[in-house]
Amino acid sequence: MDQKRIGCDRLRAKVTSAEAAAAFIGSGSTVGMSGFTGSGYPKAVPLALAARIEAEHAAGKPFHVRVWTGASTGPELDGALAKADGIEFRLPYNSDPIMREKINRGEMEYFDMHLSQVAPMAWQGFLGPLDTAVIEVAGVRPDGALIPSSSVGNNKTWLERARQVILEVNNWQNAALEGMHDVYYGAALPPNRTPIPLVRPDDRIGEPYFRCDPDKIVAIVETHGPDRNLPFAQPDDAARAIAGHLVDFFRHEVARGRLPASLLPLQSGVGNIANAVLAGLLESPFENMTAYTEVIQDGMLDLLASGKLRMASATAFSLSPGAAAALNADMARFHDKMILRPQEISNHPELIRRLGCIAMNGLIEADIYGNVNSTHIMGSRIQNGIGGSGDFARNAYVSIFMTPSLAKGGKISAIVPQASHVDHITQDVQVLVTEQGLADLRGLSPKQRAKAIIENCSHPNYRPALADYFRRAKEHSYGQQSPSLPGEALSWHQRFIETGSMLA
Amino acid sequence: MDQKRIGCDRLRAKVTSAEAAAAFIGSGSTVGMSGFTGSGYPKAVPLALAARIEAEHAAGKPFHVRVWTGASTGPELDGALAKADGIEFRLPYNSDPIMREKINRGEMEYFDMHLSQVAPMAWQGFLGPLDTAVIEVAGVRPDGALIPSSSVGNNKTWLERARQVILEVNNWQNAALEGMHDVYYGAALPPNRTPIPLVRPDDRIGEPYFRCDPDKIVAIVETHGPDRNLPFAQPDDAARAIAGHLVDFFRHEVARGRLPASLLPLQSGVGNIANAVLAGLLESPFENMTAYTEVIQDGMLDLLASGKLRMASATAFSLSPGAAAALNADMARFHDKMILRPQEISNHPELIRRLGCIAMNGLIEADIYGNVNSTHIMGSRIQNGIGGSGDFARNAYVSIFMTPSLAKGGKISAIVPQASHVDHITQDVQVLVTEQGLADLRGLSPKQRAKAIIENCSHPNYRPALADYFRRAKEHSYGQQSPSLPGEALSWHQRFIETGSMLA
Repeated sequence: MDQKRIGCDRLRAKVTSAEAAAAFIGSGSTVGMSGFTGSGYPKAVPLALAARIEAEHAAGKPFHVRVWTGASTGPELDGALAKADGIEFRLPYNSDPIMREKINRGEMEYFDMHLSQVAPMAWQGFLGPLDTAVIEVAGVRPDGALIPSSSVGNNKTWLERARQVILEVNNWQNAALEGMHDVYYGAALPPNRTPIPLVRPDDRIGEPYFRCDPDKIVAIVETHGPDRNLPFAQPDDAARAIAGHLVDFFRHEVARGRLPASLLPLQSGVGNIANAVLAGLLESPFENMTAYTEVIQDGMLDLLASGKLRMASATAFSLSPGAAAALNADMARFHDKMILRPQEISNHPELIRRLGCIAMNGLIEADIYGNVNSTHIMGSRIQNGIGGSGDFARNAYVSIFMTPSLAKGGKISAIVPQASHVDHITQDVQVLVTEQGLADLRGLSPKQRAKAIIENCSHPNYRPALADYFRRAKEHSYGQQSPSLPGEALSWHQRFIETGSMLA
Repeated sequence: MDQKRIGCDRLRAKVTSAEAAAAFIGSGSTVGMSGFTGSGYPKAVPLALAARIEAEHAAGKPFHVRVWTGASTGPELDGALAKADGIEFRLPYNSDPIMREKINRGEMEYFDMHLSQVAPMAWQGFLGPLDTAVIEVAGVRPDGALIPSSSVGNNKTWLERARQVILEVNNWQNAALEGMHDVYYGAALPPNRTPIPLVRPDDRIGEPYFRCDPDKIVAIVETHGPDRNLPFAQPDDAARAIAGHLVDFFRHEVARGRLPASLLPLQSGVGNIANAVLAGLLESPFENMTAYTEVIQDGMLDLLASGKLRMASATAFSLSPGAAAALNADMARFHDKMILRPQEISNHPELIRRLGCIAMNGLIEADIYGNVNSTHIMGSRIQNGIGGSGDFARNAYVSIFMTPSLAKGGKISAIVPQASHVDHITQDVQVLVTEQGLADLRGLSPKQRAKAIIENCSHPNYRPALADYFRRAKEHSYGQQSPSLPGEALSWHQRFIETGSMLA
């Protein structure tokens, strides 16, 4: 293998196999892995660990680990370890289908967290000790400093907190990643916290490398493999309609003098709708935009390439295979337009509020008052997790949630009488958009919100039933601030569970 | 009247009657009033405005205003205007019983807001223009600077945003209030926001006075009247038990090295339970404590007097009549131990997270997963509002919610299968305390949380039914991340509405 990526002689001596590295990880221990939205996760050691766990289980021996990451990883990590029944506890975010299924069968414990809080809570200590960090890097410098990979996530914290460190040096990652990261070393526990000195999305406040005590590094594994993400679907009519409503809203706000002509730093969630909105901005009149967000996905690369987006700050890439290959082939062009930071900085409430981000996130369902459920289908089945949506929605200058008004071919309405689970309270949901239209909920009372949401956002197939529920709630509710009928409020979910459709 | 409080000749010429001042306020206009938790609200002009509204209504003419405040005010403001049917829209917080009743009858619109966001959202512009500010002050200096009263709230913003200003100079307020305030003038709209330079609760980052363009001041009314607040109940057994569990928890965290021996800056909600907890801290081993909170209430004065609390930062007092009189008689003693700031600073997420506040707030109900309802009885009837609880709970170092396990003589369980309304999501509820015990929920998955809450916090009268619901939900739920039965989850609320009791 190509050992040029390991510039430090002393560390080069620690190169070993994935199997030998995985042997350092004991049953019952806690492992902090790199990885954020399918980028920069270790690709060999988790597979070797999964094989070891399967062998132990086959021999009748219990073997489980607790796994902390940045956010979602890839099939070689979450998928393999879940398939091996190797994880007893997982935080803070998952999108792997095998692991999702195990969680929803009640076979493992999953603590779904605000992504800004993972690193500080790890320092607080109540999560317990961190035994091992397994971190993918793009290289090791002669002085032992680590060149981060395609995500930063919680790696700084895992490297500092872990008793022992295993590195994966992935030479598939472009060498031009070097210098694109900004790792802030000023975080502390109270009472020693100080202001974070970032006032523009393009400010650099840290260092391009991770520090790591070389004595803690027990193994280095060389890999050569791409981040594995799914391709994005081409925007459909609903996604294009949502994007159109949003661009109209931004134009209106700029015209009223309530947003600058270059907007404010954009935060965009992950997924097809978010990608469609970014595509919509490509056709918009706004120039010199910036992004201060969690992840850089396909649409953001297109915006950067067009010059309409001046720069993007995030903690990770989340690119389709095509976009990842294209970026990898052209990294130098984007080198000075992107900054990757620790997730406690990309998602920090202090910075999101200071910068005044425009937050755009998806949802599973919203109710007539604009409470948003981002995580639990029918109130109980986890989809992915809250991720950074809470960090951004509460602190944004404008907090936008968007969704097609129907799911499952019309059997589910995204607008329901009452959310079956709440991740974002009404105060944090200021604009709601579906393909039907946009409801600007800012400054409205709950009943005013309900009227706007039912009229502008709900699908015609469900609108009469929503209007009827709201009308009857206003007649019979216990109180009239947010009229509701508890005996009926969750009946649409119950009907779906029983019949497979929310339609009566 | 004593005109010594108005040191500026030019402004002294604007002294007039409350009736003449109220005549400046037109129907349909928006009025920004001072006042926060019953302190520092105008006491004469709102009464005169209410009389004028009643006269107009008697003459068959419509007359309504939109009212913005800091938080709750007093009977001379919210009570009088609500009684006169004079308010069509109110933000951001109310605790007046007459107004509460009108809201819950659906007779007025109420927008219940995060208190940190009121001032910045007023600047954003979507709330509409502010026509008139009516602000109680403790005095006017020769240069026209205004000496704030017993609350700061949003007064800085109302004075800046309003087209015209009416002052009430209340010489009941102690002259020694001068110098106790710290009004930060560094706030801006993005992209011009910069770090707020506060790193300790006792830092002063602003000015002791409000600036106000004298040309905007249309009337000054002299008053002499106390802030009117209700007395606190003496702590009962449940409140003392809650305080005991909390002090034990703090001792344990200090012993584990997870909290400093002087704790971290305390935030305490308003009410009898919060007051009992402060009384409990008086008997605790912790010294040199500080508070970074919304309001200074009776128990905090006792802690300050004892020397165990070194200083307290807040935006307002909220004192019983006895404590207010005692403070008023002894203000000089407390002068250097208290700082009152604008509520956008007292409640700023940036500062709460930086300081690492210990947040202690009450609730109406929590569900088995620890979702907290702070506002809506039976999901629809507003009690007061979310206030600052969201600002603190999400950004705290430890976010604690506390309540007796029963309400209404046992007919309501404070722990329910599913919250009928959610203000604080599970991620923001880290410790739950009732007189039954304390559940440390940090780092737990939803099912682990449910077990801890049912076992430690629920009342024995409801515990078997909660355990039975949870057991059946684990058997029959659609998904197993947060097991629930939508057909039954809100049945306790429905039963209460129908029978007057949650007990089956």
